[in-house]
Amino acid sequence: MTHDFRQAALDYHAEPTPGKISVELTKPAETQLDLSLAYSPGVAEPCREIAEDAEEAYRYTGKGNLVAVISNGTAVLGLGNLGALASKPVMEGKALLFKRFAGINAVDIEVDTENAAEFIDTVARIADTFGGINLEDIKAPECFEIESTLISRCDIPVFHDDQHGTAIVTAAGMINALEIQGKKLEDAVITCLGAGSAAIACMRLLVSLGARRENIYMLDRRGVIYAGREGVNAFKREFANRTEKRSLSDAIAGADVFVGLSGANLLSAEMLRSMADRPVVFACSNPDPEIQPELALQTRDDLIIATGRSDYPNQVNNVLGFPFIFRGALDVRASAINEEMKMAAVRALCDLAKEPVAPEVLRACGLESLSFGPDYIIPKPMDSRLLTRLAPAVAQAAVDTGVARLPLPADYCPSL
Amino acid sequence: MTHDFRQAALDYHAEPTPGKISVELTKPAETQLDLSLAYSPGVAEPCREIAEDAEEAYRYTGKGNLVAVISNGTAVLGLGNLGALASKPVMEGKALLFKRFAGINAVDIEVDTENAAEFIDTVARIADTFGGINLEDIKAPECFEIESTLISRCDIPVFHDDQHGTAIVTAAGMINALEIQGKKLEDAVITCLGAGSAAIACMRLLVSLGARRENIYMLDRRGVIYAGREGVNAFKREFANRTEKRSLSDAIAGADVFVGLSGANLLSAEMLRSMADRPVVFACSNPDPEIQPELALQTRDDLIIATGRSDYPNQVNNVLGFPFIFRGALDVRASAINEEMKMAAVRALCDLAKEPVAPEVLRACGLESLSFGPDYIIPKPMDSRLLTRLAPAVAQAAVDTGVARLPLPADYCPSL
Repeated sequence: MTHDFRQAALDYHAEPTPGKISVELTKPAETQLDLSLAYSPGVAEPCREIAEDAEEAYRYTGKGNLVAVISNGTAVLGLGNLGALASKPVMEGKALLFKRFAGINAVDIEVDTENAAEFIDTVARIADTFGGINLEDIKAPECFEIESTLISRCDIPVFHDDQHGTAIVTAAGMINALEIQGKKLEDAVITCLGAGSAAIACMRLLVSLGARRENIYMLDRRGVIYAGREGVNAFKREFANRTEKRSLSDAIAGADVFVGLSGANLLSAEMLRSMADRPVVFACSNPDPEIQPELALQTRDDLIIATGRSDYPNQVNNVLGFPFIFRGALDVRASAINEEMKMAAVRALCDLAKEPVAPEVLRACGLESLSFGPDYIIPKPMDSRLLTRLAPAVAQAAVDTGVARLPLPADYCPSL
Repeated sequence: MTHDFRQAALDYHAEPTPGKISVELTKPAETQLDLSLAYSPGVAEPCREIAEDAEEAYRYTGKGNLVAVISNGTAVLGLGNLGALASKPVMEGKALLFKRFAGINAVDIEVDTENAAEFIDTVARIADTFGGINLEDIKAPECFEIESTLISRCDIPVFHDDQHGTAIVTAAGMINALEIQGKKLEDAVITCLGAGSAAIACMRLLVSLGARRENIYMLDRRGVIYAGREGVNAFKREFANRTEKRSLSDAIAGADVFVGLSGANLLSAEMLRSMADRPVVFACSNPDPEIQPELALQTRDDLIIATGRSDYPNQVNNVLGFPFIFRGALDVRASAINEEMKMAAVRALCDLAKEPVAPEVLRACGLESLSFGPDYIIPKPMDSRLLTRLAPAVAQAAVDTGVARLPLPADYCPSL
């Protein structure tokens, strides 16, 4: 990161006012009558209605379009455990993205505890306030217990974006990349470098979508997670294969797919050369990928590479998922975001990438032309069709699987 | 409340969108560069700065201008324990008032527990998110422990508005009314009907301002709280006098001041007649006061009466206090709102009422003229000078008492 960019990022946050979001009025508050409706005595009426029927909160308050972005700061970006307060810029940033891309009001909540039970109790007790909860930047393995317990305790969607948002966008890009390479997910040998929450969620979703668990080799800092290895938690153990492979070099040889959710420059040119023909490389470590795209493309010309960076083609970016997934879930008042809804989002992303790229997207990216192929496997964040394709697909899946409390609105077409 | 008003209040909350507040962007988020500053990778920079120095959260996030309005719904308006969710319209309404009157971003948090320790833990753990906490509609006596414990656990202002906001506005009106009546707070015999959190806070503040505890008779549902009465909690016991008075009729006879924070029509004409010459009556029960102003003024013409209603003169309205008190506290980064800051707000309210009424206020109230006297003892909510008088007074008191972490800004004059 250059000094200039660093300063620009600090200035963006500090000037002219601190932070990135504000709270504004959506109703008039000028006259005495306005105030008597907004507050005492008029406000007693919606309170009474909600006390009689909790669903009325969706009619008379902002709950139904309000998402909390909640963290304890134990795994902030790739920076580690910075604590609750220092995670606030990220959570406010996520709130900004919710509004910008899907019209969802979102507020950040930083919870100052590293204890999973305390975190769960805190979030469960304030959950009534919101229509959905986006968990963020919570370290593994606590994040798994936190999410699953909150899902069971809350009647609103609870979604750990570092897991599922990453998994959804990765899976969509992966399916399209394999199609371009003439391969099938069912047959692909996959090496996953990294065994944190994002890696585990990615591999789980790929298995849901057809990948074979026995074709997946997951590695943590100690190497391949193989059946019988000691000191492996239950989440990693899901991907413990019976294998003699021990190192990344062992695991990458002959692999069709590399998924990196680990650290900078851990994939060497030599390892890349040892992969199968027409490989797919997702080097998603941020800001520096597992292999620099220039080096990868110099090393072999039959690969498709995606990264987490906006300055290369094929950016795996969670903003392609969470705003629209929540939009769809909120609009049919889904009680959860289930596997079918996630898979619907994957399919909608895959399909959208195959459509002609909108002129506005080309302009925003400064490109003359772009079409489905090795350099364009997933849509761009500025594509306004993400909202109109993903949200309805997710909402329909919620209705189909019985977690929606409202039917799909007639001619449902969300807009900003 | 008429059917039409009731329906207008429901419509106000439901149409065209549910609720009263939204979250909006304060920074650009259109280009790829914008997004890279607002979120990954740029957002890592303010995170790092805050991890090194927590005070930097005030520079790079919205914390310093963000107040949480928090309730568990155990004492919603005068409606009783409606539960956390049903209190949401009130809390959103308060957030609306914070923004409208003082430019403060405020979000509501409903905490689903009636257990004081659980409530305290929950709020303490999320407190880092905010620059201040406004507690609301929490029943007594739990509200006292909740507030005092949170004050000791948090390094930001924690303020239970039902107590202190009510007390500040009541005390300001009371001091001015007594002055008009040619009486002194030090000598006034005060009957307080009601012994909830607002009543106790009002009497505590009046004592801080000079009222004599032995001149105060407080009554709960069982009558006068006298020394030696059994089953009286520690908070009420503060106002247990050695007296033979037992009923409201006993206590009101000869009193200079009546403060009602109880229920509709509990003060009869006969009782009013038994008060001292030139009495002051604060009949603040909402929506129906302890005595109807028409009846009170028919009964005797030497009184000053204030109510909680906007359709009579002298409305005791918390909105005259909390927005500006928090504005002043936030602007010097006060770690608490202490007694001196509350008293500074009282004095600023008293002084402002004696100034000429602004034309804009007359217009908003539909009045030809208005000046300090029996029908105008406290400012009106639409008076824009509330912000420029109260906030600096409160901020100065914070600086003077050593709870401010910033000096008073040069030429400090807050505006919307």
